[in-house]
Amino acid sequence: MASVETEARTECTLVLGGVRSGKSRHAEQLLMAVPAPWIYIATARAWDEEMQARIERHREDRAVGWQTVEEPLGLAGALEEAGQAPVLVDCLTLWLTNLLLAERDIASETGAVLRVLARRSAPTVLVSNEVGLGIVPETPLGRRFRDEAGWLNQAVACAARRVVFMVAGLPMIVKAG
Amino acid sequence: MASVETEARTECTLVLGGVRSGKSRHAEQLLMAVPAPWIYIATARAWDEEMQARIERHREDRAVGWQTVEEPLGLAGALEEAGQAPVLVDCLTLWLTNLLLAERDIASETGAVLRVLARRSAPTVLVSNEVGLGIVPETPLGRRFRDEAGWLNQAVACAARRVVFMVAGLPMIVKAG
Amino acid sequence: MASVETEARTECTLVLGGVRSGKSRHAEQLLMAVPAPWIYIATARAWDEEMQARIERHREDRAVGWQTVEEPLGLAGALEEAGQAPVLVDCLTLWLTNLLLAERDIASETGAVLRVLARRSAPTVLVSNEVGLGIVPETPLGRRFRDEAGWLNQAVACAARRVVFMVAGLPMIVKAG
Repeated sequence: MASVETEARTECTLVLGGVRSGKSRHAEQLLMAVPAPWIYIATARAWDEEMQARIERHREDRAVGWQTVEEPLGLAGALEEAGQAPVLVDCLTLWLTNLLLAERDIASETGAVLRVLARRSAPTVLVSNEVGLGIVPETPLGRRFRDEAGWLNQAVACAARRVVFMVAGLPMIVKAG
Repeated sequence: MASVETEARTECTLVLGGVRSGKSRHAEQLLMAVPAPWIYIATARAWDEEMQARIERHREDRAVGWQTVEEPLGLAGALEEAGQAPVLVDCLTLWLTNLLLAERDIASETGAVLRVLARRSAPTVLVSNEVGLGIVPETPLGRRFRDEAGWLNQAVACAARRVVFMVAGLPMIVKAG
Repeated sequence: MASVETEARTECTLVLGGVRSGKSRHAEQLLMAVPAPWIYIATARAWDEEMQARIERHREDRAVGWQTVEEPLGLAGALEEAGQAPVLVDCLTLWLTNLLLAERDIASETGAVLRVLARRSAPTVLVSNEVGLGIVPETPLGRRFRDEAGWLNQAVACAARRVVFMVAGLPMIVKAG
Protein backbone atom coordinates (compact mmCIF):
# COMPACT_ATOMS: atom_id res chain seq x y z
CA MET A 1 0.00 0.00 0.00
CA ALA A 2 3.08 2.22 0.25
CA SER A 3 2.73 3.47 -3.31
CA VAL A 4 -0.90 4.49 -2.73
CA GLU A 5 0.13 6.45 0.36
CA THR A 6 2.94 8.15 -1.50
CA GLU A 7 0.58 9.19 -4.26
CA ALA A 8 -1.97 10.47 -1.79
CA ARG A 9 0.61 12.60 0.00
CA THR A 10 1.59 14.31 -3.21
CA GLU A 11 -1.70 16.17 -3.07
CA CYS A 12 -1.59 17.36 0.53
CA THR A 13 -0.39 20.89 1.31
CA LEU A 14 -0.05 22.53 4.74
CA VAL A 15 -0.34 26.32 4.75
CA LEU A 16 1.17 27.62 7.99
CA GLY A 17 1.49 31.18 9.20
CA GLY A 18 0.58 33.82 11.70
CA VAL A 19 -2.71 35.63 12.09
CA ARG A 20 -3.54 37.86 9.10
CA SER A 21 -0.64 36.46 7.10
CA GLY A 22 -2.82 35.62 4.10
CA LYS A 23 -3.05 31.87 4.85
CA SER A 24 -6.71 31.42 3.87
CA ARG A 25 -6.45 33.37 0.63
CA HIS A 26 -3.33 31.50 -0.42
CA ALA A 27 -4.92 28.16 0.46
CA GLU A 28 -8.01 29.03 -1.59
CA GLN A 29 -5.87 29.99 -4.58
CA LEU A 30 -3.95 26.72 -4.33
CA LEU A 31 -7.15 24.68 -4.36
CA MET A 32 -8.80 26.74 -7.11
CA ALA A 33 -6.03 25.66 -9.47
CA VAL A 34 -8.06 22.44 -9.88
CA PRO A 35 -11.65 22.46 -11.24
CA ALA A 36 -14.63 23.24 -8.96
CA PRO A 37 -16.56 22.25 -6.92
CA TRP A 38 -14.32 22.69 -3.91
CA ILE A 39 -15.30 21.66 -0.40
CA TYR A 40 -14.50 24.10 2.37
CA ILE A 41 -14.40 22.47 5.81
CA ALA A 42 -14.82 25.30 8.32
CA THR A 43 -13.79 24.33 11.86
CA ALA A 44 -14.62 27.73 13.37
CA ARG A 45 -17.25 27.96 16.05
CA ALA A 46 -18.86 31.34 16.55
CA TRP A 47 -18.27 31.86 20.30
CA ASP A 48 -18.95 35.60 20.10
CA GLU A 49 -19.72 38.43 17.68
CA GLU A 50 -16.03 39.03 16.95
CA MET A 51 -15.61 35.44 15.77
CA GLN A 52 -18.94 35.52 13.91
CA ALA A 53 -17.77 38.59 11.95
CA ARG A 54 -14.49 36.83 11.16
CA ILE A 55 -16.30 33.72 9.85
CA GLU A 56 -18.65 35.78 7.69
CA ARG A 57 -15.87 37.88 6.24
CA HIS A 58 -14.06 34.71 5.20
CA ARG A 59 -17.27 33.27 3.68
CA GLU A 60 -18.04 36.45 1.70
CA ASP A 61 -14.45 36.55 0.44
CA ARG A 62 -14.78 33.14 -1.20
CA ALA A 63 -15.76 32.89 -4.86
CA VAL A 64 -18.65 30.78 -6.17
CA GLY A 65 -17.93 27.08 -6.59
CA TRP A 66 -17.32 26.52 -2.89
CA GLN A 67 -19.44 24.20 -0.80
CA THR A 68 -19.08 24.94 2.91
CA VAL A 69 -19.19 22.21 5.54
CA GLU A 70 -19.12 23.39 9.17
CA GLU A 71 -17.43 20.80 11.33
CA PRO A 72 -15.89 22.02 14.60
CA LEU A 73 -14.94 18.57 15.94
CA GLY A 74 -15.37 15.61 13.58
CA LEU A 75 -12.69 16.52 11.06
CA ALA A 76 -11.74 12.94 10.13
CA GLY A 77 -15.38 12.15 9.33
CA ALA A 78 -15.83 15.31 7.26
CA LEU A 79 -12.70 14.52 5.23
CA GLU A 80 -13.91 10.97 4.73
CA GLU A 81 -17.29 12.20 3.50
CA ALA A 82 -15.65 14.58 1.01
CA GLY A 83 -14.62 11.50 -0.94
CA GLN A 84 -12.24 12.43 -3.72
CA ALA A 85 -13.35 16.06 -4.07
CA PRO A 86 -10.72 18.78 -3.50
CA VAL A 87 -10.89 20.00 0.09
CA LEU A 88 -9.69 22.98 2.08
CA VAL A 89 -9.60 22.70 5.89
CA ASP A 90 -9.60 26.09 7.62
CA CYS A 91 -8.17 25.74 10.14
CA LEU A 92 -6.41 23.10 12.24
CA THR A 93 -5.73 25.38 15.23
CA LEU A 94 -9.43 26.24 15.63
CA TRP A 95 -10.21 22.53 15.39
CA LEU A 96 -7.61 21.90 18.10
CA THR A 97 -9.16 24.62 20.29
CA ASN A 98 -12.55 22.94 19.92
CA LEU A 99 -11.08 19.53 20.81
CA LEU A 100 -9.40 20.97 23.92
CA LEU A 101 -12.58 22.69 25.09
CA ALA A 102 -14.63 19.53 24.46
CA GLU A 103 -11.95 17.50 26.29
CA ARG A 104 -11.52 15.08 23.40
CA ASP A 105 -8.50 12.78 23.02
CA ILE A 106 -6.29 14.87 20.76
CA ALA A 107 -3.78 12.15 19.85
CA SER A 108 -6.55 9.80 18.78
CA GLU A 109 -8.43 12.47 16.78
CA THR A 110 -5.21 13.55 15.09
CA GLY A 111 -4.38 9.95 14.24
CA ALA A 112 -7.80 9.51 12.61
CA VAL A 113 -7.26 12.64 10.46
CA LEU A 114 -3.80 11.49 9.38
CA ARG A 115 -5.19 8.09 8.35
CA VAL A 116 -7.88 9.72 6.19
CA LEU A 117 -5.32 12.08 4.64
CA ALA A 118 -3.10 9.12 3.74
CA ARG A 119 -6.01 7.55 1.81
CA ARG A 120 -6.98 10.71 -0.12
CA SER A 121 -5.57 11.26 -3.59
CA ALA A 122 -7.51 14.47 -4.33
CA PRO A 123 -5.94 17.83 -3.51
CA THR A 124 -6.19 18.68 0.19
CA VAL A 125 -5.05 22.01 1.56
CA LEU A 126 -4.88 22.42 5.34
CA VAL A 127 -4.52 25.82 6.99
CA SER A 128 -2.91 26.13 10.42
CA ASN A 129 -1.58 28.84 12.70
CA GLU A 130 1.98 28.98 13.91
CA VAL A 131 1.57 30.12 17.54
CA GLY A 132 4.87 29.24 19.20
CA LEU A 133 6.96 32.29 18.33
CA GLY A 134 5.96 34.69 21.09
CA ILE A 135 6.88 34.64 24.75
CA VAL A 136 5.57 31.99 27.15
CA PRO A 137 1.77 32.25 27.70
CA GLU A 138 0.74 33.09 31.24
CA THR A 139 -1.83 30.33 31.72
CA PRO A 140 -1.33 26.53 31.81
CA LEU A 141 -4.12 26.21 29.20
CA GLY A 142 -2.33 28.72 26.94
CA ARG A 143 0.90 26.73 27.27
CA ARG A 144 -0.88 23.42 26.67
CA PHE A 145 -2.61 24.82 23.56
CA ARG A 146 0.71 26.09 22.24
CA ASP A 147 2.36 22.70 22.82
CA GLU A 148 -0.49 20.76 21.21
CA ALA A 149 -0.59 23.13 18.22
CA GLY A 150 3.12 22.67 17.67
CA TRP A 151 2.87 18.87 17.79
CA LEU A 152 -0.16 18.87 15.48
CA ASN A 153 1.62 21.09 12.96
CA GLN A 154 4.67 18.83 13.05
CA ALA A 155 2.58 15.70 12.48
CA VAL A 156 0.67 17.20 9.56
CA ALA A 157 3.82 18.78 8.08
CA CYS A 158 5.49 15.38 8.19
CA ALA A 159 2.57 13.75 6.35
CA ALA A 160 2.12 16.58 3.83
CA ARG A 161 3.99 16.69 0.59
CA ARG A 162 4.23 20.48 0.56
CA VAL A 163 4.49 22.95 3.44
CA VAL A 164 4.46 26.72 3.01
CA PHE A 165 5.01 29.38 5.69
CA MET A 166 3.15 32.61 4.98
CA VAL A 167 4.86 35.94 5.67
CA ALA A 168 2.85 39.11 4.92
CA GLY A 169 0.75 37.34 2.30
CA LEU A 170 3.74 35.72 0.59
CA PRO A 171 4.50 31.99 0.71
CA MET A 172 7.93 30.75 1.79
CA ILE A 173 8.51 27.15 0.76
CA VAL A 174 9.39 24.97 3.76
CA LYS A 175 8.87 21.57 2.11
CA ALA A 176 8.63 21.24 -1.65
CA GLY A 177 6.82 18.22 -3.07
CA MET B 1 1.38 55.25 -16.14
CA ALA B 2 1.81 51.51 -15.52
CA SER B 3 5.48 51.53 -16.51
CA VAL B 4 6.23 54.37 -14.09
CA GLU B 5 4.62 52.41 -11.26
CA THR B 6 6.57 49.29 -12.15
CA GLU B 7 9.83 51.22 -12.10
CA ALA B 8 8.96 52.84 -8.77
CA ARG B 9 8.27 49.50 -7.13
CA THR B 10 11.69 48.19 -8.05
CA GLU B 11 13.15 50.43 -5.37
CA CYS B 12 10.83 49.58 -2.47
CA THR B 13 11.93 47.01 0.13
CA LEU B 14 9.99 45.79 3.15
CA VAL B 15 12.10 44.52 6.06
CA LEU B 16 9.89 42.38 8.31
CA GLY B 17 10.80 40.60 11.50
CA GLY B 18 10.35 40.16 15.20
CA VAL B 19 11.56 42.40 17.97
CA ARG B 20 15.38 42.52 18.22
CA SER B 21 15.77 40.58 14.98
CA GLY B 22 18.15 43.16 13.46
CA LYS B 23 15.50 44.79 11.21
CA SER B 24 16.68 48.41 11.68
CA ARG B 25 20.34 47.65 11.18
CA HIS B 26 19.66 45.60 8.06
CA ALA B 27 17.38 48.33 6.69
CA GLU B 28 20.06 50.97 7.28
CA GLN B 29 22.69 48.86 5.52
CA LEU B 30 20.37 48.39 2.54
CA LEU B 31 19.81 52.12 2.21
CA MET B 32 23.48 53.03 2.77
CA ALA B 33 24.33 51.09 -0.39
CA VAL B 34 23.25 54.27 -2.25
CA PRO B 35 24.98 57.65 -1.69
CA ALA B 36 24.06 59.91 1.29
CA PRO B 37 22.18 61.89 2.43
CA TRP B 38 19.57 59.42 3.64
CA ILE B 39 16.29 60.44 5.22
CA TYR B 40 15.21 58.54 8.30
CA ILE B 41 11.48 58.84 9.02
CA ALA B 42 11.04 57.90 12.68
CA THR B 43 7.45 57.08 13.61
CA ALA B 44 8.22 56.36 17.27
CA ARG B 45 6.58 58.47 19.93
CA ALA B 46 8.33 58.57 23.31
CA TRP B 47 5.45 57.54 25.60
CA ASP B 48 7.74 56.70 28.49
CA GLU B 49 11.40 56.46 29.49
CA GLU B 50 11.71 52.91 28.16
CA MET B 51 10.64 54.05 24.69
CA GLN B 52 12.78 57.21 24.92
CA ALA B 53 15.86 55.07 25.64
CA ARG B 54 15.00 52.83 22.68
CA ILE B 55 14.67 55.82 20.32
CA GLU B 56 17.96 57.32 21.47
CA ARG B 57 19.83 54.05 21.18
CA HIS B 58 18.65 53.74 17.58
CA ARG B 59 19.63 57.35 16.84
CA GLU B 60 23.12 56.94 18.32
CA ASP B 61 23.62 53.73 16.36
CA ARG B 62 23.15 55.51 13.03
CA ALA B 63 26.17 56.80 11.12
CA VAL B 64 26.58 60.39 9.89
CA GLY B 65 24.78 61.21 6.66
CA TRP B 66 21.34 60.58 8.12
CA GLN B 67 18.70 63.27 8.39
CA THR B 68 16.00 62.35 10.93
CA VAL B 69 12.37 63.34 10.44
CA GLU B 70 10.04 62.54 13.35
CA GLU B 71 6.57 61.86 12.06
CA PRO B 72 4.29 59.71 14.23
CA LEU B 73 1.13 60.10 12.10
CA GLY B 74 1.51 61.86 8.72
CA LEU B 75 3.63 59.23 6.98
CA ALA B 76 2.28 59.87 3.47
CA GLY B 77 3.11 63.57 3.78
CA ALA B 78 6.61 62.89 5.10
CA LEU B 79 7.32 60.49 2.22
CA GLU B 80 5.98 63.05 -0.26
CA GLU B 81 8.23 65.73 1.21
CA ALA B 82 11.29 63.50 0.94
CA GLY B 83 11.04 63.93 -2.82
CA GLN B 84 13.42 61.58 -4.57
CA ALA B 85 15.90 61.19 -1.71
CA PRO B 86 16.47 57.66 -0.34
CA VAL B 87 14.23 57.06 2.65
CA LEU B 88 14.04 54.62 5.55
CA VAL B 89 10.73 54.35 7.45
CA ASP B 90 11.18 52.87 10.95
CA CYS B 91 8.67 51.51 11.59
CA LEU B 92 5.22 50.79 10.19
CA THR B 93 3.90 49.02 13.31
CA LEU B 94 4.66 52.03 15.54
CA TRP B 95 2.96 54.25 12.96
CA LEU B 96 -0.04 51.91 13.08
CA THR B 97 -0.08 52.07 16.89
CA ASN B 98 -0.14 55.87 16.70
CA LEU B 99 -2.98 55.81 14.15
CA LEU B 100 -5.01 53.45 16.36
CA LEU B 101 -4.50 55.58 19.47
CA ALA B 102 -5.37 58.76 17.54
CA GLU B 103 -8.45 56.99 16.10
CA ARG B 104 -7.46 57.76 12.52
CA ASP B 105 -8.94 55.94 9.49
CA ILE B 106 -6.29 53.28 8.94
CA ALA B 107 -7.47 52.15 5.49
CA SER B 108 -7.42 55.69 4.18
CA GLU B 109 -3.99 56.50 5.69
CA THR B 110 -2.55 53.25 4.33
CA GLY B 111 -3.98 54.00 0.90
CA ALA B 112 -2.30 57.41 0.90
CA VAL B 113 1.07 55.86 1.79
CA LEU B 114 0.75 53.22 -0.94
CA ARG B 115 -0.02 55.93 -3.52
CA VAL B 116 3.10 57.92 -2.56
CA LEU B 117 5.22 54.75 -2.64
CA ALA B 118 3.95 53.98 -6.15
CA ARG B 119 5.18 57.39 -7.33
CA ARG B 120 8.64 57.18 -5.73
CA SER B 121 11.54 55.95 -7.84
CA ALA B 122 14.24 56.51 -5.18
CA PRO B 123 15.16 53.67 -2.81
CA THR B 124 12.63 53.28 0.01
CA VAL B 125 13.14 50.80 2.83
CA LEU B 126 10.24 50.19 5.20
CA VAL B 127 10.68 48.37 8.52
CA SER B 128 7.77 46.52 10.09
CA ASN B 129 7.17 44.04 12.89
CA GLU B 130 5.65 40.64 12.38
CA VAL B 131 3.37 40.28 15.43
CA GLY B 132 0.98 37.48 14.50
CA LEU B 133 3.02 34.43 15.46
CA GLY B 134 2.24 34.18 19.16
CA ILE B 135 -0.93 33.07 20.88
CA VAL B 136 -4.14 35.14 20.77
CA PRO B 137 -3.81 38.46 22.67
CA GLU B 138 -6.09 38.78 25.69
CA THR B 139 -7.56 42.20 24.90
CA PRO B 140 -9.79 43.27 21.96
CA LEU B 141 -7.36 46.15 21.26
CA GLY B 142 -4.45 43.69 21.16
CA ARG B 143 -6.35 41.49 18.72
CA ARG B 144 -7.37 44.48 16.57
CA PHE B 145 -3.77 45.75 16.48
CA ARG B 146 -2.55 42.30 15.42
CA ASP B 147 -5.15 42.12 12.66
CA GLU B 148 -4.42 45.61 11.36
CA ALA B 149 -0.65 45.00 11.46
CA GLY B 150 -1.08 41.82 9.43
CA TRP B 151 -3.20 43.55 6.80
CA LEU B 152 -0.81 46.51 6.61
CA ASN B 153 2.17 44.19 6.15
CA GLN B 154 0.35 42.28 3.42
CA ALA B 155 -0.55 45.50 1.55
CA VAL B 156 3.00 46.87 1.70
CA ALA B 157 4.55 43.49 0.86
CA CYS B 158 2.30 43.29 -2.18
CA ALA B 159 3.40 46.76 -3.35
CA ALA B 160 7.08 46.24 -2.54
CA ARG B 161 9.50 44.75 -4.99
CA ARG B 162 11.56 43.01 -2.32
CA VAL B 163 10.52 41.57 1.05
CA VAL B 164 12.93 40.12 3.60
CA PHE B 165 12.10 38.35 6.86
CA MET B 166 14.76 38.82 9.53
CA VAL B 167 15.74 35.88 11.74
CA ALA B 168 18.43 36.51 14.39
CA GLY B 169 19.96 39.34 12.38
CA LEU B 170 19.98 37.38 9.13
CA PRO B 171 17.70 38.16 6.16
CA MET B 172 15.57 35.44 4.58
CA ILE B 173 14.35 36.43 1.13
CA VAL B 174 10.55 36.26 0.91
CA LYS B 175 10.12 38.21 -2.32
CA ALA B 176 13.06 38.86 -4.63
CA GLY B 177 12.87 41.82 -6.95
CA MET C 1 44.76 32.97 14.95
CA ALA C 2 42.11 33.97 12.40
CA SER C 3 42.39 30.68 10.53
CA VAL C 4 41.80 28.70 13.73
CA GLU C 5 38.68 30.75 14.46
CA THR C 6 37.39 30.29 10.93
CA GLU C 7 37.84 26.54 11.19
CA ALA C 8 36.13 26.44 14.57
CA ARG C 9 33.12 28.33 13.29
CA THR C 10 32.56 25.84 10.51
CA GLU C 11 31.31 23.38 13.09
CA CYS C 12 28.87 25.60 14.99
CA THR C 13 25.16 25.42 14.17
CA LEU C 14 22.33 27.47 15.70
CA VAL C 15 18.90 25.81 15.63
CA LEU C 16 16.25 28.50 16.14
CA GLY C 17 12.51 28.13 16.28
CA GLY C 18 9.31 28.44 18.23
CA VAL C 19 8.08 26.21 21.00
CA ARG C 20 7.29 22.66 19.80
CA SER C 21 8.83 23.33 16.42
CA GLY C 22 11.08 20.26 16.58
CA LYS C 23 14.26 22.18 17.48
CA SER C 24 15.66 19.64 19.98
CA ARG C 25 15.02 16.63 17.77
CA HIS C 26 16.59 18.30 14.75
CA ALA C 27 19.59 19.41 16.83
CA GLU C 28 20.07 15.86 18.13
CA GLN C 29 19.93 14.45 14.60
CA LEU C 30 22.51 16.98 13.41
CA LEU C 31 24.91 16.02 16.19
CA MET C 32 24.32 12.27 15.82
CA ALA C 33 25.73 12.50 12.29
CA VAL C 34 29.15 12.36 13.98
CA PRO C 35 30.26 9.39 16.13
CA ALA C 36 29.21 9.11 19.82
CA PRO C 37 29.68 9.95 22.63
CA TRP C 38 27.78 13.22 22.47
CA ILE C 39 27.60 15.67 25.34
CA TYR C 40 24.20 17.18 26.08
CA ILE C 41 24.41 20.42 28.08
CA ALA C 42 20.97 20.91 29.62
CA THR C 43 20.37 24.45 30.86
CA ALA C 44 16.85 23.75 32.14
CA ARG C 45 16.09 24.19 35.79
CA ALA C 46 13.10 22.31 37.13
CA TRP C 47 11.14 25.17 38.77
CA ASP C 48 7.91 23.17 38.90
CA GLU C 49 6.35 19.85 37.94
CA GLU C 50 5.46 21.07 34.46
CA MET C 51 9.11 21.86 33.73
CA GLN C 52 10.29 18.64 35.41
CA ALA C 53 8.03 16.62 33.10
CA ARG C 54 9.35 18.52 30.10
CA ILE C 55 12.99 17.81 31.07
CA GLU C 56 12.32 14.12 31.62
CA ARG C 57 10.45 13.73 28.36
CA HIS C 58 13.44 15.22 26.53
CA ARG C 59 15.85 12.92 28.40
CA GLU C 60 13.81 9.79 27.66
CA ASP C 61 13.58 10.77 23.99
CA ARG C 62 17.36 10.74 23.61
CA ALA C 63 19.11 7.64 22.35
CA VAL C 64 22.02 5.93 24.12
CA GLY C 65 25.42 7.49 23.57
CA TRP C 66 24.44 10.79 25.21
CA GLN C 67 26.13 12.09 28.33
CA THR C 68 24.01 14.73 30.06
CA VAL C 69 25.56 17.69 31.87
CA GLU C 70 23.13 19.91 33.79
CA GLU C 71 24.40 23.48 33.84
CA PRO C 72 21.82 26.24 34.33
CA LEU C 73 24.33 29.13 34.57
CA GLY C 74 27.97 28.34 33.82
CA LEU C 75 27.62 27.60 30.12
CA ALA C 76 31.07 28.86 29.10
CA GLY C 77 32.69 26.58 31.68
CA ALA C 78 30.64 23.56 30.63
CA LEU C 79 31.58 24.10 26.98
CA GLU C 80 35.23 24.48 27.98
CA GLU C 81 35.11 21.24 29.95
CA ALA C 82 33.59 19.36 27.00
CA GLY C 83 36.96 19.71 25.29
CA GLN C 84 36.74 18.60 21.69
CA ALA C 85 33.74 16.29 22.09
CA PRO C 86 30.62 17.05 20.06
CA VAL C 87 28.19 19.10 22.14
CA LEU C 88 24.52 20.04 22.05
CA VAL C 89 23.36 23.01 24.16
CA ASP C 90 19.62 22.93 24.90
CA CYS C 91 18.77 25.71 25.16
CA LEU C 92 20.11 29.27 25.12
CA THR C 93 16.82 30.93 26.08
CA LEU C 94 16.49 28.86 29.28
CA TRP C 95 20.10 29.72 30.08
CA LEU C 96 19.23 33.41 29.54
CA THR C 97 16.21 33.08 31.82
CA ASN C 98 18.45 31.61 34.52
CA LEU C 99 20.99 34.44 34.10
CA LEU C 100 18.24 37.07 34.37
CA LEU C 101 16.75 35.50 37.51
CA ALA C 102 20.22 35.18 39.09
CA GLU C 103 20.95 38.82 38.09
CA ARG C 104 24.14 37.87 36.27
CA ASP C 105 25.88 40.18 33.77
CA ILE C 106 24.45 38.89 30.51
CA ALA C 107 26.84 40.69 28.15
CA SER C 108 29.86 39.31 29.99
CA GLU C 109 28.47 35.76 30.20
CA THR C 110 27.56 35.83 26.49
CA GLY C 111 31.04 37.11 25.62
CA ALA C 112 32.61 34.22 27.52
CA VAL C 113 30.46 31.68 25.64
CA LEU C 114 31.32 33.23 22.27
CA ARG C 115 35.03 33.06 23.08
CA VAL C 116 34.81 29.35 23.95
CA LEU C 117 32.79 28.68 20.77
CA ALA C 118 35.45 30.41 18.68
CA ARG C 119 38.08 28.02 20.09
CA ARG C 120 36.08 24.82 19.56
CA SER C 121 36.66 22.82 16.40
CA ALA C 122 34.31 19.94 17.30
CA PRO C 123 30.67 20.06 16.20
CA THR C 124 28.57 22.29 18.45
CA VAL C 125 24.82 22.59 18.03
CA LEU C 126 23.02 25.30 20.00
CA VAL C 127 19.23 25.37 20.38
CA SER C 128 17.42 28.65 20.98
CA ASN C 129 13.87 29.97 20.97
CA GLU C 130 12.68 32.76 18.73
CA VAL C 131 10.38 34.74 21.04
CA GLY C 132 10.00 38.11 19.34
CA LEU C 133 7.19 37.38 16.88
CA GLY C 134 4.15 37.92 19.08
CA ILE C 135 2.68 41.13 20.42
CA VAL C 136 4.44 43.24 23.08
CA PRO C 137 4.66 41.46 26.47
CA GLU C 138 2.75 43.18 29.27
CA THR C 139 5.52 43.23 31.87
CA PRO C 140 8.89 45.07 31.81
CA LEU C 141 10.61 41.75 32.63
CA GLY C 142 8.85 40.09 29.68
CA ARG C 143 9.99 42.90 27.39
CA ARG C 144 13.54 42.79 28.75
CA PHE C 145 13.70 39.01 28.30
CA ARG C 146 12.48 39.36 24.71
CA ASP C 147 15.09 42.03 23.97
CA GLU C 148 17.92 40.05 25.53
CA ALA C 149 16.88 36.85 23.75
CA GLY C 150 16.87 38.68 20.41
CA TRP C 151 20.34 40.12 20.99
CA LEU C 152 21.70 36.77 22.17
CA ASN C 153 20.31 35.00 19.11
CA GLN C 154 21.83 37.65 16.82
CA ALA C 155 25.25 37.33 18.47
CA VAL C 156 25.28 33.53 18.25
CA ALA C 157 23.86 33.54 14.71
CA CYS C 158 26.64 35.90 13.65
CA ALA C 159 29.31 33.60 15.14
CA ALA C 160 27.74 30.36 13.88
CA ARG C 161 28.52 28.94 10.49
CA ARG C 162 25.03 27.55 9.97
CA VAL C 163 21.65 28.81 11.20
CA VAL C 164 18.36 26.99 10.68
CA PHE C 165 14.86 28.21 11.54
CA MET C 166 12.48 25.37 12.40
CA VAL C 167 8.89 25.49 11.14
CA ALA C 168 6.62 22.58 12.11
CA GLY C 169 9.55 20.20 12.49
CA LEU C 170 11.15 21.22 9.18
CA PRO C 171 14.40 23.20 8.92
CA MET C 172 14.55 26.37 6.83
CA ILE C 173 18.12 27.36 6.04
CA VAL C 174 18.86 30.93 7.21
CA LYS C 175 22.65 30.79 6.96
CA ALA C 176 24.40 28.02 5.04
CA GLY C 177 27.99 27.20 5.96
